[in-house]
Amino acid sequence: MPFLRIYYLYFSPHKAYVRKLKNILGFVPGNIKLYKMAFRHKSVATTIKDGVKNSNERLEFLGDAVLGCVVAELLFKLYPYKDEGFLTELRSKIVSRANLNQLSHKLGFNELIEYDARMINYPNKQGSLLGDAFEAIVGAVYMDKGYSFTREFLLTRIIKPHVDIHLLEITETNFKSRLIEWCQHFGKEIQFIPVENPPGESPKLFTVKVVINGEVHGVGKDFNKKSAEKLAAEKACEELKVFEVV
Amino acid sequence: MPFLRIYYLYFSPHKAYVRKLKNILGFVPGNIKLYKMAFRHKSVATTIKDGVKNSNERLEFLGDAVLGCVVAELLFKLYPYKDEGFLTELRSKIVSRANLNQLSHKLGFNELIEYDARMINYPNKQGSLLGDAFEAIVGAVYMDKGYSFTREFLLTRIIKPHVDIHLLEITETNFKSRLIEWCQHFGKEIQFIPVENPPGESPKLFTVKVVINGEVHGVGKDFNKKSAEKLAAEKACEELKVFEVV
Repeated sequence: MPFLRIYYLYFSPHKAYVRKLKNILGFVPGNIKLYKMAFRHKSVATTIKDGVKNSNERLEFLGDAVLGCVVAELLFKLYPYKDEGFLTELRSKIVSRANLNQLSHKLGFNELIEYDARMINYPNKQGSLLGDAFEAIVGAVYMDKGYSFTREFLLTRIIKPHVDIHLLEITETNFKSRLIEWCQHFGKEIQFIPVENPPGESPKLFTVKVVINGEVHGVGKDFNKKSAEKLAAEKACEELKVFEVV
Repeated sequence: MPFLRIYYLYFSPHKAYVRKLKNILGFVPGNIKLYKMAFRHKSVATTIKDGVKNSNERLEFLGDAVLGCVVAELLFKLYPYKDEGFLTELRSKIVSRANLNQLSHKLGFNELIEYDARMINYPNKQGSLLGDAFEAIVGAVYMDKGYSFTREFLLTRIIKPHVDIHLLEITETNFKSRLIEWCQHFGKEIQFIPVENPPGESPKLFTVKVVINGEVHGVGKDFNKKSAEKLAAEKACEELKVFEVV
């Protein structure tokens, strides 16, 4: 539909915005409202009906699912001899908030995101703004152009040029050391304490809890102590929102 | 490709299996190997290379993502005025292990799953066999026929006739009451205790921890106390593996 594209780019009332989007995304979007919504943080959204806001959160829900599916297929085909544990872990690195924030920044999404500037006081919140908008844009592209287009867009425009999968593969997300460093940085005391298994559970299972300043922040269970500690640390990192090495 | 279909159904060496699949799935599959793999539990799998088995686990990883995406889009369109919290919760009910096990059984997948019969001793394991195979079949259909076909297959052949979304919508997963009942059942003491927010955090945020027999098992944070309690209870349910009402 070249006529429609020409209309959007040169004659529509949103032509300036359409051109900006085209520069960033590499294609002429159809339904501009979707993209505007994808870049609208809830801090500046208005209620449209029944308490639901016209923010990017619903599109983020959709985009997260679409992105997960495209990356799952990519890894499934790229690593035919790796098990599902490997695939799951690598996918979670690719779609991690830290990685999506970076991608969003690289692509220049920060110039289009609308949010309440007072939020800058909350560094963590502002950090996830970028990744949230990234997912919402994926949702918007899906609603606007369908699955095949979105898949192609993600693979050729985003992942191939910007994501070094093999580097992520070897970069181990070591939750235990990340958590320990975080505790040291903020002067907190951390302990990994073995827990006795409840009766009836396999004696081969190890259970470990992470105790930070006297409070349990995660419990892990696995067939070896090291993995149990890693799981416990991962849960604690999630609970305490320790996303980056400090 | 009617010729290929006729070949698969009447002349191929796998014609009996193809007909069985056609009866269950409603279409003539192309790459039979994928479907055989989707029905093969790891207990009967053999190693193909580098320690990777020809079990259904990789396809399950893929199918889980595809199913999540199709259901996300369905709910996004079905409930235009519900927020992403509602959508996330409803999707997790639809793709819950309990629901997928039921679906798998209804569709007759149990007759095709290959597994080591000694596993019947492990009721939980056998239970998830069905749901795992369901996800793996979704992965197989995706690899065999692509996204549009799989989406259509899931919507018209599985979800529309077999999943009562509106019933699931009103069936509330009340983590707080589930957790309290579980504690009563096992004679454990449970408390929901408000936690003071760290300095710098919004004074509007409530933080609540769930303490069971003196140990913290989950912390929730939200803009109202009830939601914070619910989140904390949800985390505790997950940590303690409290999946069903006792």
